[in-house]
Amino acid sequence: MIKFRTLEKNDLEEVFNLLQQLTEIDYSDRNLGECWNSFIGNTSSNSIVGLYKGKIVAYGSIVIENKIRGEVAGHIEDIVVDKIVRGKNIGVKLIKELVKIGKSKGCYRVTLLCKEDLAEFYNKNNFKVGGIAMKVFTK
Amino acid sequence: MIKFRTLEKNDLEEVFNLLQQLTEIDYSDRNLGECWNSFIGNTSSNSIVGLYKGKIVAYGSIVIENKIRGEVAGHIEDIVVDKIVRGKNIGVKLIKELVKIGKSKGCYRVTLLCKEDLAEFYNKNNFKVGGIAMKVFTK
Repeated sequence: MIKFRTLEKNDLEEVFNLLQQLTEIDYSDRNLGECWNSFIGNTSSNSIVGLYKGKIVAYGSIVIENKIRGEVAGHIEDIVVDKIVRGKNIGVKLIKELVKIGKSKGCYRVTLLCKEDLAEFYNKNNFKVGGIAMKVFTK
Repeated sequence: MIKFRTLEKNDLEEVFNLLQQLTEIDYSDRNLGECWNSFIGNTSSNSIVGLYKGKIVAYGSIVIENKIRGEVAGHIEDIVVDKIVRGKNIGVKLIKELVKIGKSKGCYRVTLLCKEDLAEFYNKNNFKVGGIAMKVFTK
């Protein structure tokens, strides 16, 4: 079965490879140690990996935001499940784990952006459509 | 004309009042100093106020997220313009300022969640619809 645990520095290369299934980027010039330091040092990200037969097959993150009026909100980011293990409900369990982390950090609400055809998937963890996502690329 | 500057601790009460126009919450039991400390201390939020005739009439925030693979992304949050000054293009300028901050922090992309009928407004700053927003309330 799938087991989740907090992301560790040694997982980075495996997670980078996995994330290529989500968005392909060229990270050949990136230094893993620098990525780790800026990720862990500057962001309120809480990231987990899912292990299946000793291999990282899932990754996800929840960014914790302290709102100005005192509430805490969570933003789920970078959800990926390895193609080779899809159909085993691993994605649903991954989201459940991240929402649990959000709750433990005091979040009153967890949000995420996704493609329209994923609404049904996220609905399994009680997410409801609450507007549209808008983006601008700045580089 | 409108002038923007970084949020200061002394602005909090005025901004709280303004944000009631966005979402009404009961913050009578909240301590302004505590809100300030958790907001400024725990989050990568960069917030600005817009001043018009010496009064705070606009507020907005951009949360900076370091992504695991080394990129930096921005999330615009809590956009509000005082009803009494709407129609003066202040909202468009506010978003422009926040995107500028995002760029200066190295963001490759800025995202936001909004209601469908605001797409046209955000489009003035080149935001395009890029999926749906999903939410779950956890309290």
